[in-house]
Amino acid sequence: MLRPVTSVSMAAPTLSTISGLHHGASPLLRARTSSTMCACMPSLAHRKVARELVAEAEARLLPSAVPADVLEFRNSTGTAVGMLDVRRGVPASSIDFMLYSSLHCKVPNGAIDITSVLISLNALSDAPHFLMEFIQGSPSSMVVILDLLPRKDLALHPEYIVKYYENTGLDKQRENIEELPQTRPYRSPSLFVRSACSPTALSVTIDCGHGGESTLEEIVSSHLASAVKEVLQIWLHSCAGQTSEMEDAEREIMVRRDQAVRLKSIEVDLTANLPKMFGPDVSSHVIAEIRKAFG
Amino acid sequence: MLRPVTSVSMAAPTLSTISGLHHGASPLLRARTSSTMCACMPSLAHRKVARELVAEAEARLLPSAVPADVLEFRNSTGTAVGMLDVRRGVPASSIDFMLYSSLHCKVPNGAIDITSVLISLNALSDAPHFLMEFIQGSPSSMVVILDLLPRKDLALHPEYIVKYYENTGLDKQRENIEELPQTRPYRSPSLFVRSACSPTALSVTIDCGHGGESTLEEIVSSHLASAVKEVLQIWLHSCAGQTSEMEDAEREIMVRRDQAVRLKSIEVDLTANLPKMFGPDVSSHVIAEIRKAFG
Repeated sequence: MLRPVTSVSMAAPTLSTISGLHHGASPLLRARTSSTMCACMPSLAHRKVARELVAEAEARLLPSAVPADVLEFRNSTGTAVGMLDVRRGVPASSIDFMLYSSLHCKVPNGAIDITSVLISLNALSDAPHFLMEFIQGSPSSMVVILDLLPRKDLALHPEYIVKYYENTGLDKQRENIEELPQTRPYRSPSLFVRSACSPTALSVTIDCGHGGESTLEEIVSSHLASAVKEVLQIWLHSCAGQTSEMEDAEREIMVRRDQAVRLKSIEVDLTANLPKMFGPDVSSHVIAEIRKAFG
Repeated sequence: MLRPVTSVSMAAPTLSTISGLHHGASPLLRARTSSTMCACMPSLAHRKVARELVAEAEARLLPSAVPADVLEFRNSTGTAVGMLDVRRGVPASSIDFMLYSSLHCKVPNGAIDITSVLISLNALSDAPHFLMEFIQGSPSSMVVILDLLPRKDLALHPEYIVKYYENTGLDKQRENIEELPQTRPYRSPSLFVRSACSPTALSVTIDCGHGGESTLEEIVSSHLASAVKEVLQIWLHSCAGQTSEMEDAEREIMVRRDQAVRLKSIEVDLTANLPKMFGPDVSSHVIAEIRKAFG
């Protein structure tokens, strides 16, 4: 059951696709879409975790910046439904944008549900971006990526590792989840995606086996929700709030690197996969909004 | 039993310490040291793999460049014995040096045996360095690191990933070993070491459990030996033989990066650990030879 998951999403560092209630839409829009989406997009434990995460970051974000047909979209045959929200950071904030998406897509043996949140910082700061991604391929198993994406070449900048990864105790959160007997390492098929992640990235498959639906739900609602909250708090505290002194040349390399990672992740993740699920028209409309956010 | 292993070696990207027969010493020296060392340094399957690896690369290397008391050294109480060999590449080659080391150190519950081979390229090429490290903490378990260490920031250079890691099929070798039921992922406690490795790095603990000595020996002599040979062949074919066109600025960054990785790895791995095993005098003598190689 997990095969189609990995072929649909590359678990790219910047993501993708679509579900659930979304914040930031106008009340009218929210009422319309939530009633429509409840019929199609299952209310999974992982979607609740994502909604709570987005709510936590909300105070630092401007209202939604995407049109209604991107806040919710579906394919022509009704087998796939998605949502994408893009929110800019409040003025003078070091948050560039948040990209929040969820997707539900029927496949021959069931469905795939992918939810991801990327909160990207701007060039006022060199601190890592926040990334969370859930790829649920069955009611009892899913892939989880949770990371603060580095913005510098870590081998050349050991001080960056110390500041953002060692001193923050991030590795402990990874260990807490990897200790669960239901997890095993998940390797993105894309070597680029693996390279873009930090040394403390959580990247696992949680597989609760046949009949393990409620076990998965429990793991997601307790252990995983708690790890996500901790990592977000670390990020809000040590990354999102601050600006960084940098030389111009250094900042230029960082901006170039950010841009390269974004471009490559669109290529790996979206342009390869969204059209298969939503057809070329819907996909290109959604991808255009993501490109706009990426600048 | 594995605890002391990870505290002694950081499984650093550039390594360290010492055993077995070594190539490149004068026949007189070889005769003397091999008879001495046979008494102290156990003839493990992993040492045979390392010797065969070094023999394979030999045609591209000059004779040994280190003094006799570095080719073999021991601590004052006789509980630890080590060897270090450094060989330069033949003239006009893109090989800078090979650092081959092995160590045997008694600990309260047994012994630790660490063997590592680093073959480092010079600035004529941007191709990855070759690294292999075995850290054997008991007769039935060991840590294995096998990687081609990247010399560029991979997130900024996707073409480098394609050239040296995708097109060479390196990931298959990692998979072959990770598929074995006796392996589990090994995470270096050093986040820096994790960051210096490539996305196709093999980094595992092979644990054959109580009474699993012969199983480990078999895995090392068959699966592991074969993966090491394959990765070396890939490296000799796609990396060691060639030079790379680069702009001066690009080359300068690469040289700076190489230097940073080397310096940091000496700090993480050697200056922290060798003195504990061999005392300050022997250690500083050995470390001086490594620094000389590192330039």
